Amino acid sequence: MYSIRLKKILERLLVIYEGAYMKIINGGVTAAKGFKAAGVYAGIKKVKKDMAMIYSEVPCKAGGTFTTNIVKAAPVLWDKEVVTSSAFAQAVVINSGIANACTGKEGYEYCIEMAKTTGEKLDIPADAVLVGSTGVIGKQLPMDIINKGIARLVPLLSDNAEGGSSAAEAIMTTDTVKKEIAVTVVIQNTLVTIGGMCKGSGMIHPNMCTMLGFVTTDVNISKELLDEALAEDVKDTYNMISVDGDTSTNDTVLLLANGMANNPAITEKNEDYTIFAEALNYVNTYLSKKIAGDGEGATALFEVKVIGADSKEQAVMLSKSVITSSLTKTAVFGHDANWGRIFCAMGYSGAMFDPEKVDLFFESKSGKIQITENGTAVDYCEDEATKILSEQEVTAIIDVKMGDESATAWGCDLTFDYVKINADYRT
Amino acid sequence: MYSIRLKKILERLLVIYEGAYMKIINGGVTAAKGFKAAGVYAGIKKVKKDMAMIYSEVPCKAGGTFTTNIVKAAPVLWDKEVVTSSAFAQAVVINSGIANACTGKEGYEYCIEMAKTTGEKLDIPADAVLVGSTGVIGKQLPMDIINKGIARLVPLLSDNAEGGSSAAEAIMTTDTVKKEIAVTVVIQNTLVTIGGMCKGSGMIHPNMCTMLGFVTTDVNISKELLDEALAEDVKDTYNMISVDGDTSTNDTVLLLANGMANNPAITEKNEDYTIFAEALNYVNTYLSKKIAGDGEGATALFEVKVIGADSKEQAVMLSKSVITSSLTKTAVFGHDANWGRIFCAMGYSGAMFDPEKVDLFFESKSGKIQITENGTAVDYCEDEATKILSEQEVTAIIDVKMGDESATAWGCDLTFDYVKINADYRT
Repeated sequence: MYSIRLKKILERLLVIYEGAYMKIINGGVTAAKGFKAAGVYAGIKKVKKDMAMIYSEVPCKAGGTFTTNIVKAAPVLWDKEVVTSSAFAQAVVINSGIANACTGKEGYEYCIEMAKTTGEKLDIPADAVLVGSTGVIGKQLPMDIINKGIARLVPLLSDNAEGGSSAAEAIMTTDTVKKEIAVTVVIQNTLVTIGGMCKGSGMIHPNMCTMLGFVTTDVNISKELLDEALAEDVKDTYNMISVDGDTSTNDTVLLLANGMANNPAITEKNEDYTIFAEALNYVNTYLSKKIAGDGEGATALFEVKVIGADSKEQAVMLSKSVITSSLTKTAVFGHDANWGRIFCAMGYSGAMFDPEKVDLFFESKSGKIQITENGTAVDYCEDEATKILSEQEVTAIIDVKMGDESATAWGCDLTFDYVKINADYRT
Repeated sequence: MYSIRLKKILERLLVIYEGAYMKIINGGVTAAKGFKAAGVYAGIKKVKKDMAMIYSEVPCKAGGTFTTNIVKAAPVLWDKEVVTSSAFAQAVVINSGIANACTGKEGYEYCIEMAKTTGEKLDIPADAVLVGSTGVIGKQLPMDIINKGIARLVPLLSDNAEGGSSAAEAIMTTDTVKKEIAVTVVIQNTLVTIGGMCKGSGMIHPNMCTMLGFVTTDVNISKELLDEALAEDVKDTYNMISVDGDTSTNDTVLLLANGMANNPAITEKNEDYTIFAEALNYVNTYLSKKIAGDGEGATALFEVKVIGADSKEQAVMLSKSVITSSLTKTAVFGHDANWGRIFCAMGYSGAMFDPEKVDLFFESKSGKIQITENGTAVDYCEDEATKILSEQEVTAIIDVKMGDESATAWGCDLTFDYVKINADYRT
């Protein structure tokens, strides 16, 4: 009797603990219940892994956000159709090396063939298979290699962390590190897991969003709220990063929810929804910052926080303009507190503000320094500024003193290696 | 009797010849009658010439177009006032090395002081003196050096080509070559001359426009038509170039007309106006292309012609998006016919078009090659494309097959040297 009460108290304490503190766990897209993944070298690229698959034991609700570029890759067109019209999704098949963009009807048919082959091998309908492609634009996919790759992926599907990790590796192009994360939260006494992976790292200026992001969760949630949670969250995460200002033809973020956590279904925007949305935001923010910090050739993650803004829109326009400026990015690479370039980028952002009110600060783990007050330079120490700007993560805080709104954008520096990588990308 | 008729016939033939063929002549801002110029090393920069002056013997009508950046340099504010409110302008004083932007009230007072000192030395009103500054943002001008520089410039003013050339040299910052041109046209049997000089070469994405452009002419024209000719022309010239996508705080183009050619005054948009406007366009196009081709670190001028457009606006948006794309620019540097990046940049330009209709060609003095037909790659020779893309001037011709409108934009490649120049600009 005593031990049963103690056990219940301990369980309750555990749930409170887990609920209050979202936990970051090991793993990626296979962390949530029921999800398996794999990655292989199929032969599209010269030596590295180039195909990945994610599979859920049971059908999933699927949400997706896609590039706003008029030139849309074949898999973007296909996935849009699947997430809006299919009854459910259950797998994602992804290749790197070729983007399947600007490939016409032939390219679209190849995309459908990827879904069909995957569906047959997994014994699920073709329209339950989402497709992702990333790499060179304008080349056709080598379908013999792709089909063989699919056949090899299926038996390798695994629900352990290595499965997810192998998939995260296989979707990389010019990325230098694989990008994955998993978290748990407690919703109605039930443990819910969200895991994700993504890739960058050039042609990154998502405006959902070359980046591909795949997030899997076992949460039980309605399709409508899943779509809304994703649509709202990309605005503050993937859409706030830029590597080179080029909005890709392939940007895609997919969110698969298979309900296997067995929490009471989330069907309204209550506290349960908020818990899920906050955990999703954590996952997407982590993945977005990973993409920005691993931008092609980058040596530093550059975070720009605009505070004191009149409206969210103004804060977004100002912060994105600063992270996108080539001159600001080269100054960050040079560890140079060339604040005039930041003001310049704000000035042409399209957002209104009073340059003569702006306070600018730089911050990193080396410290924080004020650079301007009311639009003109304070008497700061150039060497201290350089030291702060020499860290791998640097933040500019810009107070425009007009209101209470704010926004954070993430970019990276512009380096010799960015030029090197892109001057001979296809060779 | 016979000889007088022959002389008249020959004169007429000469005027027809000169009128039909605008002539490019030696010189720059001192080519037109009555204009003098000089350039000196005052001591703002470490070693190179850093101050210039242009002076007209008689008062001029003055037109100006200025940056749309909200952060406007002090001389932009001053010049706007002069070209709209002053009775006339008669001199321009320019410094390089410091932009006098983000310098507050103190900076604006220094700008006025430059005009005053120049006016006193030249015995003209201060509000007849236009001011130009270019260089680092956020630093105050060393007024003792500036005032001494002005005093030294005045006695050096010269109406020969060397005077203009010395001024063109003194306004350079990261420019590698000075940029000047002069042309003559005949208006109503009268020889009219237009001369100009400008500087780039970073923070160049004019949207009237760090570039500074100064055009002088002896044409006799009304102030209204002078303003209109300039406003219309910058749309097709300076506003169609980009080096790095950063619209400067200082962009300024000034056009001074002193009437000393003594042509019958141009007061309506007749054939005379057209002759003048076409010659002005030639001068501004030449100077704009010089800025683009001499962009920071550039090895090639990249020209993008969009043809077959539905509207001029669409053609402008598409062509500017392509020249601005970092990925397209690095591909040009790599001599890589990576046409997918061009399609991608068109796709996110904001302009509507059908990607599946687009024909793309590359052209240079090594030849012309078709790359895509109706949106997909034709079977072109990669080596031939690389050869064409290896020239110092490369053109992409993009036919969107929707109408008869067109636009041409000019940019440059993105190179290691761009990063080098801008990572340590202030050191």
